[in-house]
Amino acid sequence: MSDFCSLYDMKLSDLGEFGLIRRIQGIASRKSSSVLVGIGDDAAALRLSASQILLVTTDALLEGVHFDLTYTDFYSLGWKSAAVNLSDIAAMGGVPRFCLIALGIPARISAEQVTEFYRGFNALLRAHKTILVGGDTCSSRKGLFISVTVLGETNPRRVVTRAGARPGDRIFVTGTLGDSAAGLEILKSGGTLHSREHSLTLGAGRGQGARAGKLIQKHLLPVPRIQEGRKLALSGCASAMIDLSDGLSSDLSRICEQSKVGAKIYVGQIPLSPPLRKASARLKKTPLHYALSGGEDYELLFTVPPARVRKLRVLGIPFTEIGEITRARRMLLLDSSGDRTPMQPSGYNHFPPTSRP
Amino acid sequence: MSDFCSLYDMKLSDLGEFGLIRRIQGIASRKSSSVLVGIGDDAAALRLSASQILLVTTDALLEGVHFDLTYTDFYSLGWKSAAVNLSDIAAMGGVPRFCLIALGIPARISAEQVTEFYRGFNALLRAHKTILVGGDTCSSRKGLFISVTVLGETNPRRVVTRAGARPGDRIFVTGTLGDSAAGLEILKSGGTLHSREHSLTLGAGRGQGARAGKLIQKHLLPVPRIQEGRKLALSGCASAMIDLSDGLSSDLSRICEQSKVGAKIYVGQIPLSPPLRKASARLKKTPLHYALSGGEDYELLFTVPPARVRKLRVLGIPFTEIGEITRARRMLLLDSSGDRTPMQPSGYNHFPPTSRP
Repeated sequence: MSDFCSLYDMKLSDLGEFGLIRRIQGIASRKSSSVLVGIGDDAAALRLSASQILLVTTDALLEGVHFDLTYTDFYSLGWKSAAVNLSDIAAMGGVPRFCLIALGIPARISAEQVTEFYRGFNALLRAHKTILVGGDTCSSRKGLFISVTVLGETNPRRVVTRAGARPGDRIFVTGTLGDSAAGLEILKSGGTLHSREHSLTLGAGRGQGARAGKLIQKHLLPVPRIQEGRKLALSGCASAMIDLSDGLSSDLSRICEQSKVGAKIYVGQIPLSPPLRKASARLKKTPLHYALSGGEDYELLFTVPPARVRKLRVLGIPFTEIGEITRARRMLLLDSSGDRTPMQPSGYNHFPPTSRP
Repeated sequence: MSDFCSLYDMKLSDLGEFGLIRRIQGIASRKSSSVLVGIGDDAAALRLSASQILLVTTDALLEGVHFDLTYTDFYSLGWKSAAVNLSDIAAMGGVPRFCLIALGIPARISAEQVTEFYRGFNALLRAHKTILVGGDTCSSRKGLFISVTVLGETNPRRVVTRAGARPGDRIFVTGTLGDSAAGLEILKSGGTLHSREHSLTLGAGRGQGARAGKLIQKHLLPVPRIQEGRKLALSGCASAMIDLSDGLSSDLSRICEQSKVGAKIYVGQIPLSPPLRKASARLKKTPLHYALSGGEDYELLFTVPPARVRKLRVLGIPFTEIGEITRARRMLLLDSSGDRTPMQPSGYNHFPPTSRP
């Protein structure tokens, strides 16, 4: 009880997002042999039988916070609502099976738009053999809100958490980083959006348009790395894993915190796509800015013990080695000249200190 | 595809809440032997192994739609957010096991209020040995929104759906009906609310205050009928079951629709509490109005084949027989003089025809 007295009249901005999560853990924590992984990882892992682990994750998308209807069509919004949750199952090495959705719909949204949302939502579910089994559809007086829960499965001893990284483990990512955040900035700066064909153009010139299109597509229609996460888990290669939802610096800090380790990242090895390199110049930011601080790539960030790196190379997944886990509990960026810069988590904080009361 | 063309520019109010749910079912429907009960019941029932059925339900509560912070304290709001979801598990005859929550919190809400919310939420979970295993906490630019998912378990062949009622089955409810809706009206008409002690008073006179308190408590701190639902399912007594979230007329119509039957209800047998009878006079509505159309009682409505009514009587649960399932697919109210009145579903419709575009 006394633990909460100091909270009286405290603002959420004083406590911060992670402070709040720790409070919740304090209130809700209960020991149970059936909860292998509880609050604080990509998904909860529940032991239902000796041979079966159930993975469960829930993620909400709120209008004005996670999306702006000016910059997305409803098909893409549905797709992405499924993708961000499937990505959490991927980060635990699981197979998604079932899905539930709660939708709060303002009166200004048409039935056709809701149908488009469900078409996008279900297109991604179908691609991953995941079945929508229930939900709650209600009116909203305020904004559009979307809350999705996905249930997945995996094998005992094959659950990959954020807590398993050890000093000396190599750090890897799938795909390229920063594309999604750059895509959003292109949309905000006036890139046009043709939702159906997903053929997106920006400014003049065919080459520019195609490049912008790839970044925008990565933002609107992210593809969760289900197959890759599964292979990394089943092969035993990954010692820790997380999906990149808030940017490399934030998500790496979560692995470091839960594994009680630090990390060094080789700046020159961070995979950046040619479209990102070219768009960054016009957006007047460095590609590295997007890679470190830009969220919503939904690539996988994972660590591999040195002895298993050989095995990783034959799994047939697209990955890049970007750094190494260290005993010293801090995150460092190393450039090609050997200079070291401390790396701070810089992703989205839902309750930042500067937020208005 | 052509199925959706007619939806173009259609408003949700033209389609209605149940029309929308049918559209979603049309888009999302997939056959799978592992889905015993999908979209459209209190919870989904998923076969994970030969001996084990997983129940999953999700329910959202939106500020301005499901609750008004003028009439609830945060402890009660947390409690109720858990209760409405546990009640869905109760209505399937299951045991709740695990819980996830997604919260969108506006900046005007304090850390102390969020903590109170979680204290109420977890108090009910703890009472039912249900563990909070995950969630998503984010800022909201608009209203407070709450989305809860509960996972439960039951045995195969003991899942009670809305579709099993047969002509001749008797209709029962637990507890008394209409109390919650009357409690909300008392709050709205100026009944004072002392959140911590839940000692609630209205107007003058100690007796009146105590009565109002019971109704308000039923509204703010509903108790899901977990034990009762479990006994009804395990005993094999209940042929169909639903929890009363939208009022007797609406929720009975769901059993009738899914079981393809009708019902007659004996008006004089509907259980009404003494506090409701007394408060109704001052609220200038009949107790029956609250019982038929008032939602959020979270009692169980269930049907029992005549041959099992004897067995029901020894289960030790508080129930009242209120009517009978009929072959004719309509709902009738029968009063003591034998007069019949058609009964229409009158609960909350999230997308009513009169809603503004």
